[in-house]
Amino acid sequence: MKIVIIGGVAGGASAAARARRLSEDAEIVLVERGPDVSFANCGLPYYIGEKITDRDKLLIVTPERLADRFKLDVRVRSSVEAIDREARTVRILDLESGREYVESYDRLVLAPGAAPLRPPIPGIDSPGVFTLRNLQDMDRIKAAIDEGVKQVVVVGAGFIGLELVENLVGLGVSTTVVELQDQVLPPLDKEMTTPLAEKLTSQGVSLLLGEAAESFEPTDDGLVVRLKSGRGLPAQLVVLGIGVRPENKLAVDAGLSVGPRGGIQVDEHLRTDDPHIYAVGDAIEVRDFVLGQPTQAPLAGPANRQGRIAADNIFGRAVKYRGTQGTAILGLFGLTAAMTGSSEKTLQRNNRTFQTVYVHPTDHAGYYPSAEQMTLKLIFDPESGRVLGAQGVGGSGVDKRIDVLAVSIQAGMTVFDLEEMELAYAPQYGSAKDPINMAGFVAAGLLRGDHPQIDVASLFETPLADRPFLLDVRTVDEFAAGHIPEATNVPLDDLRSRLDELPRDRQIAVYCQVGQRGYLATRILNQSGFTAINVSGGYKTYKLWNFAET
Amino acid sequence: MKIVIIGGVAGGASAAARARRLSEDAEIVLVERGPDVSFANCGLPYYIGEKITDRDKLLIVTPERLADRFKLDVRVRSSVEAIDREARTVRILDLESGREYVESYDRLVLAPGAAPLRPPIPGIDSPGVFTLRNLQDMDRIKAAIDEGVKQVVVVGAGFIGLELVENLVGLGVSTTVVELQDQVLPPLDKEMTTPLAEKLTSQGVSLLLGEAAESFEPTDDGLVVRLKSGRGLPAQLVVLGIGVRPENKLAVDAGLSVGPRGGIQVDEHLRTDDPHIYAVGDAIEVRDFVLGQPTQAPLAGPANRQGRIAADNIFGRAVKYRGTQGTAILGLFGLTAAMTGSSEKTLQRNNRTFQTVYVHPTDHAGYYPSAEQMTLKLIFDPESGRVLGAQGVGGSGVDKRIDVLAVSIQAGMTVFDLEEMELAYAPQYGSAKDPINMAGFVAAGLLRGDHPQIDVASLFETPLADRPFLLDVRTVDEFAAGHIPEATNVPLDDLRSRLDELPRDRQIAVYCQVGQRGYLATRILNQSGFTAINVSGGYKTYKLWNFAET
Repeated sequence: MKIVIIGGVAGGASAAARARRLSEDAEIVLVERGPDVSFANCGLPYYIGEKITDRDKLLIVTPERLADRFKLDVRVRSSVEAIDREARTVRILDLESGREYVESYDRLVLAPGAAPLRPPIPGIDSPGVFTLRNLQDMDRIKAAIDEGVKQVVVVGAGFIGLELVENLVGLGVSTTVVELQDQVLPPLDKEMTTPLAEKLTSQGVSLLLGEAAESFEPTDDGLVVRLKSGRGLPAQLVVLGIGVRPENKLAVDAGLSVGPRGGIQVDEHLRTDDPHIYAVGDAIEVRDFVLGQPTQAPLAGPANRQGRIAADNIFGRAVKYRGTQGTAILGLFGLTAAMTGSSEKTLQRNNRTFQTVYVHPTDHAGYYPSAEQMTLKLIFDPESGRVLGAQGVGGSGVDKRIDVLAVSIQAGMTVFDLEEMELAYAPQYGSAKDPINMAGFVAAGLLRGDHPQIDVASLFETPLADRPFLLDVRTVDEFAAGHIPEATNVPLDDLRSRLDELPRDRQIAVYCQVGQRGYLATRILNQSGFTAINVSGGYKTYKLWNFAET
Repeated sequence: MKIVIIGGVAGGASAAARARRLSEDAEIVLVERGPDVSFANCGLPYYIGEKITDRDKLLIVTPERLADRFKLDVRVRSSVEAIDREARTVRILDLESGREYVESYDRLVLAPGAAPLRPPIPGIDSPGVFTLRNLQDMDRIKAAIDEGVKQVVVVGAGFIGLELVENLVGLGVSTTVVELQDQVLPPLDKEMTTPLAEKLTSQGVSLLLGEAAESFEPTDDGLVVRLKSGRGLPAQLVVLGIGVRPENKLAVDAGLSVGPRGGIQVDEHLRTDDPHIYAVGDAIEVRDFVLGQPTQAPLAGPANRQGRIAADNIFGRAVKYRGTQGTAILGLFGLTAAMTGSSEKTLQRNNRTFQTVYVHPTDHAGYYPSAEQMTLKLIFDPESGRVLGAQGVGGSGVDKRIDVLAVSIQAGMTVFDLEEMELAYAPQYGSAKDPINMAGFVAAGLLRGDHPQIDVASLFETPLADRPFLLDVRTVDEFAAGHIPEATNVPLDDLRSRLDELPRDRQIAVYCQVGQRGYLATRILNQSGFTAINVSGGYKTYKLWNFAET
């Protein structure tokens, strides 16, 4: 068995190592265009920001070590120029010597990854305009900063863009972010990104949402990024982080199918149209685990697993890839934002039914020092209660809850299962009622009809005249410090004695700070002849929307 | 509907609040012997250690607030002396006035909790010998320390005992721990507690394992704790943390069934033999979720859920309690130890078949600063691969992985599912191959036959003459710094060229530092005509046993 693997980073390197473990005898050729294999591309922004100071640490393994340990034929600085499917050969260009030669294969694994988008904007090839994909890009950006940069513009507020922003600010560089969407971190739902936008602003980042770069104009002092709005941003360094496109040229040239967004199409065994050719990693189209339909999801974890699975299948094991959930996480100035499964907007775009709830618990018991609040948004099927997606933003412990919810999605669990989860509790780590349980209680209460709720967006989409009577059940002091316009304040502990102040002929939308007192008020009112509904996540959720709408 | 609830802490308070949410009209009487309801008993050691400085924070809610908000009839300092099941009444003693009176009920909820064990050891009632259950106990211990204590003896190295030790050491008090078992934290398997024992010792704690207090003898300067070994430990303060027993006297007196370890027996709806009486919390016998048999598991999270479920059933909702997994966690001087599901020793005691693997991954990507190593032990069914239990010890991120594994157990997931988990990865939070994936890979490799393994205990239980040839595939330097006796060193990267040095007529047990190089070596050897097996978790696991055995 002779296997040729194109691409030596996450998916390719995993496929090679797994293939060797499965067969000492196989001939395995790993062809990589760059000088490095298996490097830590998720670490690049942190080296720029000098949080990682030893560049060698980003090289998880050197080409030599990989070759020795796994008895691989590793060929770096080598580009596969074409695939001849009939002959089962690839044509390889040695980028050092310029020599071209042909290599045969029994099985070919395509793991070329995805390339940062560089749209054909005037001036995009100006000096000073970079993308960040590999160590060489990183070195170039770092060199530019070391030469002295006063202003940086980061185009795109996705994961890599924001990671870069954090690191640039840490270096004391004045940074502007330009994002086409009306929110940062577009994979998340907009309201969940409000704390990130606030944090960026508080850190002195200039945040331009709903804006796009239209040209890059060289100046004496670097360049000017000209925006759609006409505004010009002077900069000495521009980094584009506006997404990636699958490196599919080889596959397309070889007549292999690619999807509408360019991903190489594979079956559940990660085999392309050609039974001798597999494809893995950021270059492929995967099955969205929740929606069951094709998507692109360039993520390191799935790429590694796909590499293993392709090798398994090559050696006759019928292992299936179960699809990608899209679990992803961002650290930003001490905040964590993470998601798994489908977002609300993805479900809307696909005309799926769903319901959402918001909770704002602390990461550990409030009586123990340093508890930090988080916001969790849970998205679930209104019929079965199955968890469809989750998003979290806040301080410590967001990563833990999103991981727990990622497993819930994998297992097909419901919000009723979340109620019953028995998670580790000591006051430093969690609560007797963990944030996950709280989200489960709220969602299950909604589905059981115990806890009728309305979300902030739906409330404010209703014309003013048709809106419910808005009742704030927080304390007088809380109400005075800020409340939703038009709300009437009756503190929860006075509610039972002041029912006569409330309308019986009109729906009452109750809110408190995070939803818990509102829930109890709703129970009291509905059992006392009123028609009441709780505003999901309370005033704190309202503020997320409120900020987003200003 | 009139509900009387006996006990106002976790389970009782939860039952009361849930009952009110389900019914505005019910009459709900909450009877609590102490002066406080719903206090944070998991926080008591941290107030003693002054990590929590505001005592009021331990009172999650005052009796008055609980009464007002949930319209409850809260009676603190009131002891239920007897239950008359025929008449459906309880006799209540007002501990303030001494008055006794009778209260009727339609439904009774028993939530009396469990009392710290105080075995009839001579001198156990001496001044200076305490247990820690409630705020009053805490105040007494704190007062004793404030008066000036030179030496403290903590009897029992369970969760609460060790939490107390951490806090005492933090106060600069000289502390000795006496534990009957030959390990600390007995719910965990012994080898997993080695890092805790080492940490205690390094913090200056005197740790006496396999020892027991036989008497407490008052002296001029406090007392002497006389041990089984004859040794005497001078102390001014002794705290017993040797377990709890269910407060079952009321139930037993009323003729309700209790289990062999004293827990009040309930059905899956948490109903006792008497259809009008429910019981919840530390006082009851629960179903072990993994083993399906009765057990006692005094844990705050389950108590809270049971309170909800009892109230649901009282109001006609047929909600079942799914059982208790025994998820628990300890923080100790920066280490975290946690478990969920069955331990190896519990499975052995119950003659269940199982297999185990050990991994020693870091909590996040090694190339990002501050990665901390952890040891995970995964216990699973050898036929189905179902996860039966897990234990973790180490630095950051142990809590997250145990929570993920707790959910896996709840969902009935297998080690094959762990391989596929898509968890949140950015370098500060995890790895592209998360510790959970790693544990899954190792366990699944074992079950598939790709990765034959032997655990350290089995290896050393084998008589020396029958043991496999022991091969250390670490580097020469690693080998020189310490290795398993009798091992031969052939570094992995030299292995393929030095196969002729290895025996073909004898099984070879391979080990490296954590198991990964050993795995690759095993693959190489078994595909080259040798019979090789990997030592699970490598030298690092060996050291856990090694320490434990000295």
